[in-house]
Amino acid sequence: MKVINKTQILAAFDADSITQLLKTGFIAYSARQVQMPPVQHFRFEAAAGDCCIKSAWLEREEYFVVKVSSGFYHNPQQGLPSNQGLMMAFSAQTGKPQVLLLDEGWLTALRTALAGRIAAELCAPQNVQAIGIVGTGMQAWLQLQHLKTVTDCRQVWLWGRSPHHLADYCQRAEAEGFQVNTTQNAAELAAHCNLIVTTTPSREPLLQAEDIRPGTHITAVGSDAEGKQELATALVAKADTILVDALSQCSQYGEIARAYQQNLLASVAVVEFGEILARGERVRKNEQQITLADLTGLAIQDAQIVKGILAKL
Amino acid sequence: MKVINKTQILAAFDADSITQLLKTGFIAYSARQVQMPPVQHFRFEAAAGDCCIKSAWLEREEYFVVKVSSGFYHNPQQGLPSNQGLMMAFSAQTGKPQVLLLDEGWLTALRTALAGRIAAELCAPQNVQAIGIVGTGMQAWLQLQHLKTVTDCRQVWLWGRSPHHLADYCQRAEAEGFQVNTTQNAAELAAHCNLIVTTTPSREPLLQAEDIRPGTHITAVGSDAEGKQELATALVAKADTILVDALSQCSQYGEIARAYQQNLLASVAVVEFGEILARGERVRKNEQQITLADLTGLAIQDAQIVKGILAKL
Repeated sequence: MKVINKTQILAAFDADSITQLLKTGFIAYSARQVQMPPVQHFRFEAAAGDCCIKSAWLEREEYFVVKVSSGFYHNPQQGLPSNQGLMMAFSAQTGKPQVLLLDEGWLTALRTALAGRIAAELCAPQNVQAIGIVGTGMQAWLQLQHLKTVTDCRQVWLWGRSPHHLADYCQRAEAEGFQVNTTQNAAELAAHCNLIVTTTPSREPLLQAEDIRPGTHITAVGSDAEGKQELATALVAKADTILVDALSQCSQYGEIARAYQQNLLASVAVVEFGEILARGERVRKNEQQITLADLTGLAIQDAQIVKGILAKL
Repeated sequence: MKVINKTQILAAFDADSITQLLKTGFIAYSARQVQMPPVQHFRFEAAAGDCCIKSAWLEREEYFVVKVSSGFYHNPQQGLPSNQGLMMAFSAQTGKPQVLLLDEGWLTALRTALAGRIAAELCAPQNVQAIGIVGTGMQAWLQLQHLKTVTDCRQVWLWGRSPHHLADYCQRAEAEGFQVNTTQNAAELAAHCNLIVTTTPSREPLLQAEDIRPGTHITAVGSDAEGKQELATALVAKADTILVDALSQCSQYGEIARAYQQNLLASVAVVEFGEILARGERVRKNEQQITLADLTGLAIQDAQIVKGILAKL
């Protein structure tokens, strides 16, 4: 079994080709050409940790991929990153383990950021006035990076709880050519931005329905397990169109889960990435619509990013 | 991440201590002290392959364990073993990948054989006249090996379809002190044996209700996925007591699944390994009962065998 470390993985990462592979993966998923068994979840209460195991095979591909990824939120106190993980590729012809990718959670972070890029391609308004980033962590950083190819806008509003993290992010973003305003009031962010990405593990809504202006697109990345929620249920219900990676996952534990389960989405168009990509359409139909993308993360994204990395090795 | 190969794993394997760990694991599972998400399954039709991903954490243990194991039934034509796989131990404190065990499917084979040993300890009649082994593969071999500690009986009846495989197994077993009769008629085997282990991937019953004599114990190992069945449904329904590793799995895709789903087990006592082990009882109450053990394989067995291997490294 070949073992590849993080340095090798990051050197082989090509955002454009992997974005294309992710689109192919989403299309295949919605066309039911992907075997993707239900996600396995663990919770480690005492260590403030969780773990999920995701696996997928795009039928007729050479490899199937299994991923173990975790978040242990006391890790930073010991100088370790919260996110840990690895991915593995196995032969779909013989079952033999072929490649172990010791990515330390990076591949999950990157394929999630690229799904955010695809969501923005499909949903963002034509004239982005300012980008709102809710959260200051790694995913908040990667999302902003990968929006560069979608919009020329370099105005950013950044929301976070920690002044230290705000200042740190701000400095890095300005070094990359962004102009950043920081705030600890998410409503203030929403008042200035019409392309918003939320990236926190919050269990209480950070944005309310009344905060959001017409014509805004929001990509909600944080909610990937029951109980997590970044947007008020009324805000979710207010969207004109909701883009989901997988309805089966988002309706259970995504950002839209509560609104979906309370039957508040009857008059909202809900569409999967794979459906809209297969039709070659954009989600946004005019500059007044509120659109929302809900990312819970699909194992087919893991399979496709691994394919993209192995192709460049 | 430490990587351990098959040779190192087999050198660290100690059947007695691991049998004890498996018992602890079964007890913890039935006492609901194990996090064990539903098994992930793949099917690779063109390659005649299947794969399952099992994972478990016995709460408060240092590691959680994830296993990927597969069977690709055209592999032997290419000189590869059908069974492939690996296990991984992750820290339950930080999520960090700790140990990769490249066991090539051996740990699954061994923990299954040891579960057969435990089943025989709990169910076998006092006076074993002859051991019946249905199947001639690796699992058929390991089951016989690990029955040595349960019974002094060295008389064996062996069923298989291939004269070549029968002869080969026979030769190896005789070298280990067994007296072996071979047959291609499973009813003939059942007429001579009161401790039977079935180890085939059959999708059609090999043993019928009328084949089995009173006082017989059967351990059914082969059926671990929907559609597999080694024992006639009427035979399953005829058992006085059925021992299952996990009722949730066996009732879905174990040997007893069809009888269970057809409501034929209403008057049969069905008990989990962990329940009976916790009570310190044997399953068999007299020498006339027909007992049946249904093994679908639990992720907690994987976690416990990994614990046993790591303890001896």
